[in-house]
Amino acid sequence: MKYLTFGEIMLRLKSPGHECLFQNGTLEATFGGGEANVAVSLANFGVDAAFLTVLPDNPVGSACMGELRRFGVDTSRILTRQGRMGIYFLESGANQRPSKVVYDRAGSAIAQTAPSEIDWDQAFAGIGWFHITGITPALSESAMELSLCAVREAKARGVTVSCDLNYRKNLWKYGKEAPQVMRELTKSVDVAIANEEDVQKSLGISAAVDVTAGQLDREKYRALGDQVLREFPNLRLIAITLRESVSADINGWSACLNNGSKFYTSRRYEIRDIVDRVGGGDSFAAGLIYGLTHYQNHQEALEFAVAASCLKHSILGDFNRVSVADVEKLMAGDGSGRVQR
Amino acid sequence: MKYLTFGEIMLRLKSPGHECLFQNGTLEATFGGGEANVAVSLANFGVDAAFLTVLPDNPVGSACMGELRRFGVDTSRILTRQGRMGIYFLESGANQRPSKVVYDRAGSAIAQTAPSEIDWDQAFAGIGWFHITGITPALSESAMELSLCAVREAKARGVTVSCDLNYRKNLWKYGKEAPQVMRELTKSVDVAIANEEDVQKSLGISAAVDVTAGQLDREKYRALGDQVLREFPNLRLIAITLRESVSADINGWSACLNNGSKFYTSRRYEIRDIVDRVGGGDSFAAGLIYGLTHYQNHQEALEFAVAASCLKHSILGDFNRVSVADVEKLMAGDGSGRVQR
Amino acid sequence: MKYLTFGEIMLRLKSPGHECLFQNGTLEATFGGGEANVAVSLANFGVDAAFLTVLPDNPVGSACMGELRRFGVDTSRILTRQGRMGIYFLESGANQRPSKVVYDRAGSAIAQTAPSEIDWDQAFAGIGWFHITGITPALSESAMELSLCAVREAKARGVTVSCDLNYRKNLWKYGKEAPQVMRELTKSVDVAIANEEDVQKSLGISAAVDVTAGQLDREKYRALGDQVLREFPNLRLIAITLRESVSADINGWSACLNNGSKFYTSRRYEIRDIVDRVGGGDSFAAGLIYGLTHYQNHQEALEFAVAASCLKHSILGDFNRVSVADVEKLMAGDGSGRVQR
Amino acid sequence: MKYLTFGEIMLRLKSPGHECLFQNGTLEATFGGGEANVAVSLANFGVDAAFLTVLPDNPVGSACMGELRRFGVDTSRILTRQGRMGIYFLESGANQRPSKVVYDRAGSAIAQTAPSEIDWDQAFAGIGWFHITGITPALSESAMELSLCAVREAKARGVTVSCDLNYRKNLWKYGKEAPQVMRELTKSVDVAIANEEDVQKSLGISAAVDVTAGQLDREKYRALGDQVLREFPNLRLIAITLRESVSADINGWSACLNNGSKFYTSRRYEIRDIVDRVGGGDSFAAGLIYGLTHYQNHQEALEFAVAASCLKHSILGDFNRVSVADVEKLMAGDGSGRVQR
Amino acid sequence: MKYLTFGEIMLRLKSPGHECLFQNGTLEATFGGGEANVAVSLANFGVDAAFLTVLPDNPVGSACMGELRRFGVDTSRILTRQGRMGIYFLESGANQRPSKVVYDRAGSAIAQTAPSEIDWDQAFAGIGWFHITGITPALSESAMELSLCAVREAKARGVTVSCDLNYRKNLWKYGKEAPQVMRELTKSVDVAIANEEDVQKSLGISAAVDVTAGQLDREKYRALGDQVLREFPNLRLIAITLRESVSADINGWSACLNNGSKFYTSRRYEIRDIVDRVGGGDSFAAGLIYGLTHYQNHQEALEFAVAASCLKHSILGDFNRVSVADVEKLMAGDGSGRVQR
Amino acid sequence: MKYLTFGEIMLRLKSPGHECLFQNGTLEATFGGGEANVAVSLANFGVDAAFLTVLPDNPVGSACMGELRRFGVDTSRILTRQGRMGIYFLESGANQRPSKVVYDRAGSAIAQTAPSEIDWDQAFAGIGWFHITGITPALSESAMELSLCAVREAKARGVTVSCDLNYRKNLWKYGKEAPQVMRELTKSVDVAIANEEDVQKSLGISAAVDVTAGQLDREKYRALGDQVLREFPNLRLIAITLRESVSADINGWSACLNNGSKFYTSRRYEIRDIVDRVGGGDSFAAGLIYGLTHYQNHQEALEFAVAASCLKHSILGDFNRVSVADVEKLMAGDGSGRVQR
Repeated sequence: MKYLTFGEIMLRLKSPGHECLFQNGTLEATFGGGEANVAVSLANFGVDAAFLTVLPDNPVGSACMGELRRFGVDTSRILTRQGRMGIYFLESGANQRPSKVVYDRAGSAIAQTAPSEIDWDQAFAGIGWFHITGITPALSESAMELSLCAVREAKARGVTVSCDLNYRKNLWKYGKEAPQVMRELTKSVDVAIANEEDVQKSLGISAAVDVTAGQLDREKYRALGDQVLREFPNLRLIAITLRESVSADINGWSACLNNGSKFYTSRRYEIRDIVDRVGGGDSFAAGLIYGLTHYQNHQEALEFAVAASCLKHSILGDFNRVSVADVEKLMAGDGSGRVQR
Repeated sequence: MKYLTFGEIMLRLKSPGHECLFQNGTLEATFGGGEANVAVSLANFGVDAAFLTVLPDNPVGSACMGELRRFGVDTSRILTRQGRMGIYFLESGANQRPSKVVYDRAGSAIAQTAPSEIDWDQAFAGIGWFHITGITPALSESAMELSLCAVREAKARGVTVSCDLNYRKNLWKYGKEAPQVMRELTKSVDVAIANEEDVQKSLGISAAVDVTAGQLDREKYRALGDQVLREFPNLRLIAITLRESVSADINGWSACLNNGSKFYTSRRYEIRDIVDRVGGGDSFAAGLIYGLTHYQNHQEALEFAVAASCLKHSILGDFNRVSVADVEKLMAGDGSGRVQR
Repeated sequence: MKYLTFGEIMLRLKSPGHECLFQNGTLEATFGGGEANVAVSLANFGVDAAFLTVLPDNPVGSACMGELRRFGVDTSRILTRQGRMGIYFLESGANQRPSKVVYDRAGSAIAQTAPSEIDWDQAFAGIGWFHITGITPALSESAMELSLCAVREAKARGVTVSCDLNYRKNLWKYGKEAPQVMRELTKSVDVAIANEEDVQKSLGISAAVDVTAGQLDREKYRALGDQVLREFPNLRLIAITLRESVSADINGWSACLNNGSKFYTSRRYEIRDIVDRVGGGDSFAAGLIYGLTHYQNHQEALEFAVAASCLKHSILGDFNRVSVADVEKLMAGDGSGRVQR
Repeated sequence: MKYLTFGEIMLRLKSPGHECLFQNGTLEATFGGGEANVAVSLANFGVDAAFLTVLPDNPVGSACMGELRRFGVDTSRILTRQGRMGIYFLESGANQRPSKVVYDRAGSAIAQTAPSEIDWDQAFAGIGWFHITGITPALSESAMELSLCAVREAKARGVTVSCDLNYRKNLWKYGKEAPQVMRELTKSVDVAIANEEDVQKSLGISAAVDVTAGQLDREKYRALGDQVLREFPNLRLIAITLRESVSADINGWSACLNNGSKFYTSRRYEIRDIVDRVGGGDSFAAGLIYGLTHYQNHQEALEFAVAASCLKHSILGDFNRVSVADVEKLMAGDGSGRVQR
Repeated sequence: MKYLTFGEIMLRLKSPGHECLFQNGTLEATFGGGEANVAVSLANFGVDAAFLTVLPDNPVGSACMGELRRFGVDTSRILTRQGRMGIYFLESGANQRPSKVVYDRAGSAIAQTAPSEIDWDQAFAGIGWFHITGITPALSESAMELSLCAVREAKARGVTVSCDLNYRKNLWKYGKEAPQVMRELTKSVDVAIANEEDVQKSLGISAAVDVTAGQLDREKYRALGDQVLREFPNLRLIAITLRESVSADINGWSACLNNGSKFYTSRRYEIRDIVDRVGGGDSFAAGLIYGLTHYQNHQEALEFAVAASCLKHSILGDFNRVSVADVEKLMAGDGSGRVQR
Repeated sequence: MKYLTFGEIMLRLKSPGHECLFQNGTLEATFGGGEANVAVSLANFGVDAAFLTVLPDNPVGSACMGELRRFGVDTSRILTRQGRMGIYFLESGANQRPSKVVYDRAGSAIAQTAPSEIDWDQAFAGIGWFHITGITPALSESAMELSLCAVREAKARGVTVSCDLNYRKNLWKYGKEAPQVMRELTKSVDVAIANEEDVQKSLGISAAVDVTAGQLDREKYRALGDQVLREFPNLRLIAITLRESVSADINGWSACLNNGSKFYTSRRYEIRDIVDRVGGGDSFAAGLIYGLTHYQNHQEALEFAVAASCLKHSILGDFNRVSVADVEKLMAGDGSGRVQR
């Protein structure tokens, strides 16, 4: 099975450690973005993963492509054209001080690309699974069209489609509300992934859940999933991550999966010294995609996804660098952190 | 309202991260000192803040001045003269290992300046609030005279005077005991700020409080405040910070305020991954000064001060870099550390 | 009393902070190894400590020797010859992600040295205490012979011998099982130091203790010690460290000591923000050796050892950089981490 | 005399040392841009300099403003609005490998600002000298209008106007040729500054000079200047920098000045270990502006400008950090680089 | 045409900047080795290049593989097995102080691999050009057999074979002299590459050339080439690089090529601020291979190779990061180092 | 022969690379000072060298002691007492921009020590050669007394005394002129070392030499040496270093030696990419002391000293890290900087 993910990858400029942005004259320059993060994580699990995007034809774009290749991601389907690369600035929070993301992604190459510029036959050649998120259609009118086109082209070819509903309130500036677009897009999706806020803001389906509270009521999530599956009968399943934000360093982390007939809840992990929260949801998506295609049942797939994304919180950068062995060790119950010699 | 703070600012040389001093060949070089920290924090709250000090006329002194200007602090009242700049070396603790401060501040320019060298009319032009600490009078005989002169000049001009009683046991080496001086100085103060140790060591007023115990008995602080206000009827109020030191990383943080008629206690924050403790008290002082001049009541002023200084513990360096919006977000109850995108 | 420790010291190449190995193009290059760590810690306690090893005659070896000298360790007994220096790569874990050690120590100079190459009279001149670990005999056939020879030469000269039973499963590749060798070596030992796994794997004495469980049952350790002391009547005492691994950051830390007649258990420390776990056991050994030769009773010696090694977890690098004063401050109960000014 | 400069300032992201862009995961983040560089240099000469620009209302924009304040530049006239901040990526060349600049400045806040958004009375309050460059009108149609408006508003108020003709071939993309615009703008200029390429490309006045040759023929520059002054009788003088590019590290550096009646040529400096070439021309402009307003004659003004900009080549970053004393020391002939103790 | 290079790649540990080894606690960790450097440079020229080697199955080996992939090198033919990865420590010289390389490559995975472990059909599938160096056969008896086997397998398949004669005096420790082996290997080579020392030490053919002198006598190299071509009639051509070492920073750089019928000498470059000399010869080999397969005549091929390798001296790390466009710009005569904007 | 040097060692705080002081928030923290530099260099030559000084009893002082031990310098004679450690800030120049040293050494522990505090018998036990400089007596009245006492105590014990006349114009602030003191001190000196300025400013003996000129007239130095030897008949010889400062990067470097009967001039080295000039003179002194005690004649001793100090210019930090083999390689004529593998 070959996997394809599609979306925007950005230059990520982070202040070192816990420093505020521009506190000193250095920024850590890496790359990241929802769908690219999924591709890299899949490649790190040893499967054949490709990433589709549009990059500027300059040293920033080629450095990005090299970085993806380093992880073994197939970059041969990536388009290059004029334009710029989206950027996000990141300041890492601590305790009560939240992490801050400052977007500088307007006018990126991908946001200016029309569906006709992509050769979909070539893009989907040999692909069995396609992954997209709610971020891409939020970028621009043309990116929204690209996104809808992509999922429909995927379905037309019998490719399984997963979508992380990811809601970003500082995007969606081109005149459409998220639900208008996302409800349409979800009609071509097989596997939906979300956190509680995404479901509400992206699909306009509201749940009586208080996000800012520490403890989460898992049972309410069963009902929320049921409702989504009722409204979108094409969906085979929906998985929802459950983050309990105690502080910027301390989170509870678990998830549930609703496949219409059964509701699974995962083991809950207490993460008390978060290294990097960004990309946590993406690492869950990658884990779930891997899990659904490599394990016998949904419970195991879910546990793999949660364990994989739990580990991501201890890794710097957008990309989850763990292997299947690392994840299965944690799934098997060893989260003691004992030195491996 | 324009604010003036007065005291010594030092070059702060810190070993990186949790390294011991001189463990490797690099030191982080920033600037800091009680009163300067207050001025910077006030400027970050968007008010007009000036700092008065004496700096050497060399590249160290001018770098310091540039750094203050960067935050918008008015440096035009600063004197330059021959001499050196005080230095402190800092090693950041962890767990049971405490942070260590090594002072190298003997013979600094400010410690050798006489009251007559300062043009007080110019220094106080347009000033409505003046802030000083118990550190400056501890430096040297002449600095003690400078300090007494400063608060008296302030009072003579009808300027509100706040003083952080800050006791430093490794200073006070010129022949006077702290209470001899500080009790005199406090007679010209309107707003006193302190921690439990400062009240005892600086004013010689003892409280039956065990500093090294984890849990603090807040009611004893009411009595302590009452006693101070009785002895110094000129004081309008005294605020006391309550630090519960579990380890170098984990502190409880709250405060109380006694205005003679009422006793206020603040919300208590649990800080579990302290980034930098130094300047915590100063950020409280700045928050209180801002709060007392921008909020309707003492409870809000106190909550602002505690929330501001809670956030300081998550910021590297002496200076509190948070804005009013950051503080009010925490005051409103959101300390979950969720990523802000 | 002059102390000698003997074993392999390696170049330690660590990725910065919590980064994965080779995540960026920089490695922190220091030195470390069980017995060298003990020598450095002893030197930091102010006693006269020498280290015996075999180093390559190249810039890596001489940098290592310089680093030992910096701490005041006597390096005059170290041999240099052709060969290479062992290396270990270290990636620092966080939360559920464990720290990883990758050994590259095959073919090191010390692993290729025969007992006859060492002048034992010179090596033991003036020495009162000798320390070795279970790592050295695991390196190679000749290193095993070196180790046995060393302890016998020590005993023959009336030198007290301590041994940290340290079991390393990725060594022991030259054809012998650990217990075959370690049981023989232990016959020349006075003071044994171990963790629960070491006793079982190095001596082949099994205890009904579940290492991966959080809470440890201390009473079982009394029985385990009794059994070891019965089997090796030459042993004066055995000390066992008790690590409760909650995560890579959070460990409980304590120890017990069994001298045949009495069983001592230490105070337990909660370490919640581990800076560097590597060398924790070595710092306990050094603390115990110091304690046994400087305090009146075994309880105090044990408390010193546990407090010293508790502090080590807050220090970057293999070496414990704390002084006797630092340790005694913690022994006396002050682990509040308050800033020392 | 108060000085105002106007234009775009960008975030400058440079790979460390001589590394290629993205060779490692770190970028040095500072700020720079032609007109801002002039303002900072003037402030470092101790005069009262203000900078006018439009910045985004986000952490990047406020960090930039703080950095300008640090040097004492008056930032009170800067506008903030929605939009992004222009960025340029810089890779530092060596030997035959040239430095590379990658622009990412499309869509910046200033490029989207109309002349009507600026209160010109406020902008020019108290200003005696106004400086602009040929970069601003190259950004966008509205920036071109802003630029023309600015110089005309300056002239209308009797302010002296200087302009660095700076030609940037990768800008000028909105449909106008440089000379169309720059010839119009130059009609409101008193002092023109240029290198040989700028004169040709910005004003469309061609000189028989081979830029790529090492040795430059200074006499041809007299004729070139004469021609410019003939075509623009409003110009009081034109100064032309003469760079002889031997390699990325080695340049000859000098300049000439033509005031219509006399032609001055400066001392020539050999710079053999260039630290940072970027901003070299701007430091000349700042030096010339300072020189023309502080020295008695044009020869001295020119020598000051050349010495100041010679020193800039030895300073990292866009900004020239030298003082008047530093420059005058070199003007006086001491370029021996002897250690100053 | 697909290119394959074969040999050892090592972990390269360099002290930062001009620091001595272990002067501070940081090493720059990259990868490099003669044949890998050629593969990376070819990939940077945009051609299809594969690298064949044997790597340990651990994080060091996989990081190395990722780094090669980043440049687009095909790593699918690389074998992994038990063993270690060779290391070299590098200290960068300056002026009269030479750069120093300390090898720690004994016992590497490739040095322990037998010819039978490699599937030569798979290794050479689709390959048109094969490159090897004199370093691999110097590693060990089995590596020598591997090398001989490789060139013969290549010839048997009609693949063009190039060999850089690279002599390393600190290798060749397994009992054979270099000429014994290299003369045999050269019989299967089409294109030989060398510097003056390599020809003498690897082939045992002596030339009356004084390496340590500054100026090199190019005519003597014609005779030397003639002699080599006479002794090895299978050789189509030999290219010799001519390095004039003035100091660690300043080198003259040129080359000559002798194809039996004609003798070509290249343009000579003066490099005065060398950034990294290591890999200079490899970048010449890559340039020559590219040139011989992309240009019409040997003069152009030689000029491409010299220009490419000239640029390498200005790039940090073993790998030459320049593109064909970069090289052709210099070939066309533009080595002025002017900033490219 | 055991060597002792005596004087002040300081904390050296340098901005990284060519950055200006405080350009970024990091300082490189090492240690250095004239006499300590000589001791370290001697230890690096493999001889038994001790350093005598007075250090504060704090972490700065002990880090300094550790650093000296690392090089094998005997630190057992060092006194510790209350006080501070002198500091100097260093900014590294380039081209026409000079390096700048900012002293912050007032009030250091050594400047406050009286001769009576030192046990001279212990200090000179086993010493055959004593070295001092003109810096120590310039620090303070008591340091001047210490210095005079030291050389007299040395002479009284038959120890050879060398003195580097080092003149520092920013010291000598306690009321004496340099010649008053230095002429007295020189009466107890056997070997004088100086540059042309030192002779004039320290001894008040003027030479018709223009320091700022590039080319130096060596013959005038013979006369200068003759005059010094005439005035101080106790001097066995005087060596004078000849620095031709072309720029901060480019210096000519040579020296001459006058022993009363013969005048020797050394080979001249062209250093074109200076890494660190500070400590250049000290490395010459160390080289000369080593040379005079290890070579047969003064010409060789001088050549060793010049070659050793030539190499120092390529090493970062005050300390010369080269070995005798490194120096003798250059003495033998190999300054080509070819990579040593």
